[in-house]
Amino acid sequence: MPNTAKIIDGKLIAEAIRGELKDEVAMLARRGVVPGLAVVLVGNDAASEVYVRAKRKTCLELGINSFDYDLPPDCTERRLLDLIRDLNEDGRVHGILVQMPLPKQIDSGKVLLAIDPRKDVDGFHPVNLGKLLSGEPCFVSCTPAGCQQLLLRSGYDPAGKHVVIVGRSNIVGKPLVALLMQKAPGGNATVTVCHSRTRDIAAITRQGDILVAAMGVPEFVKADMVKEGAVVIDVGVNRVPDATKKSGTRLVGDVDFAAVSQKVEAITPVPGGVGPMTITMLMKNTVQAARTFA
Amino acid sequence: MPNTAKIIDGKLIAEAIRGELKDEVAMLARRGVVPGLAVVLVGNDAASEVYVRAKRKTCLELGINSFDYDLPPDCTERRLLDLIRDLNEDGRVHGILVQMPLPKQIDSGKVLLAIDPRKDVDGFHPVNLGKLLSGEPCFVSCTPAGCQQLLLRSGYDPAGKHVVIVGRSNIVGKPLVALLMQKAPGGNATVTVCHSRTRDIAAITRQGDILVAAMGVPEFVKADMVKEGAVVIDVGVNRVPDATKKSGTRLVGDVDFAAVSQKVEAITPVPGGVGPMTITMLMKNTVQAARTFA
Repeated sequence: MPNTAKIIDGKLIAEAIRGELKDEVAMLARRGVVPGLAVVLVGNDAASEVYVRAKRKTCLELGINSFDYDLPPDCTERRLLDLIRDLNEDGRVHGILVQMPLPKQIDSGKVLLAIDPRKDVDGFHPVNLGKLLSGEPCFVSCTPAGCQQLLLRSGYDPAGKHVVIVGRSNIVGKPLVALLMQKAPGGNATVTVCHSRTRDIAAITRQGDILVAAMGVPEFVKADMVKEGAVVIDVGVNRVPDATKKSGTRLVGDVDFAAVSQKVEAITPVPGGVGPMTITMLMKNTVQAARTFA
Repeated sequence: MPNTAKIIDGKLIAEAIRGELKDEVAMLARRGVVPGLAVVLVGNDAASEVYVRAKRKTCLELGINSFDYDLPPDCTERRLLDLIRDLNEDGRVHGILVQMPLPKQIDSGKVLLAIDPRKDVDGFHPVNLGKLLSGEPCFVSCTPAGCQQLLLRSGYDPAGKHVVIVGRSNIVGKPLVALLMQKAPGGNATVTVCHSRTRDIAAITRQGDILVAAMGVPEFVKADMVKEGAVVIDVGVNRVPDATKKSGTRLVGDVDFAAVSQKVEAITPVPGGVGPMTITMLMKNTVQAARTFA
């Protein structure tokens, strides 16, 4: 009988964290502080609209004020920067989220830099990335923070483990390397980062006590690329054709789940693994921001 | 006959870079710009005085203006912050270097944050560290930048190689991980960072096509910890007792040079390897800063 991996249930873990956040929000309310998140959407990208709706809905659930700004697709950079300046100064707003990607006429780097780092709950401002790298308190970007929580809350502390991260994107791979190598609780891992330029990648990934797949290639990680008994975190979200589905497509991760789950100790599913954690960590950062300002 | 490694001569490589910098400084001078570096020393730590003297001397050699500030050991944080504010606004000053460590009454983090990131030629401001992590143009801190130059100028491009870094300090290990994993010229390495919490460290270090030792433990890396034919960069500078020397001590690196050099393709000596590169990269950053302001 093949081994069957423990499923790391991101929905359940996210729910537990949201429960804790509700309590914190209630405690802050007794001190007269209601955490506030400004969610800025520019244009009408369908995927962005879905994400933004989900973020706003989660705010309401937790008792966080959601300040909604929907700007037209032809919004100028100036207008967006003016809005951010106002939000930086607005005492009711503790976190500012500008949904990416932005329309072409707007320089995203400039926009990120304009956000007050103390309100940068996405953790993308260079000041927060720099503090993350040097191990100072900061806002950790949401997907890496979610990966770390999935591990810790499933009993897989990365300390002393070899964590192999596949993919070096600015929103997952790079900040996750920085997060897990720190001399700090939840860190202390030996970390290897590999990517498109890595030679004999299977020889590297097979060494991971913990393997994080975050390169955005559907089912790239096969069973012969993982160590027996490893813990696998699958960050990928890829839509692939599937004639058996009504929609004609289905979601898969960066890991060949069916095969890999026969071999490993634990694995996150897609959907229902890392996905639910990302918005939850955004809420956690917003509450953290409110606590600082309170 | 045992193999004898190629010696990567940091003095020679540093000299070559200084030659290039002299030319650049001359070119800037023709446009009316003389690069200026403010070197701030607080107190009278003997080692710091040596470093600061060397930095000022190198400025003179290259035609860079050196602005010297020597503050007493009981200097207040306020006074130092006021000086930095003045230097931030001083058009003749393109780079600001505050020699670390600072006396106890001064918060170093606060001081680093006060330096205009555009003048932060040490590359320690969170904005520069954050840009380094996300791969944007920035000031790269001097020792990691020096390690990269030693590799590139000796014909050992890290691209596609497995680089193992031992040590995760804020001034070497962490920024070097960030530098070498980037999708950029001089980067593109598969990078592993290991440290005091790494299990079976020899099994990891033996995988390094390039091995960087930067943990500050005298001669920690033994011959059985390196791959045959590896390239070894030794960042360590440790003073150990030696009865055969008049001073009673000698300098050694973090690598057991005598044994390891029999086994590897190339290695940096201590002294004369990474050391001479650090000040040189500081000068390079200062010239880069002057170019931006010019």
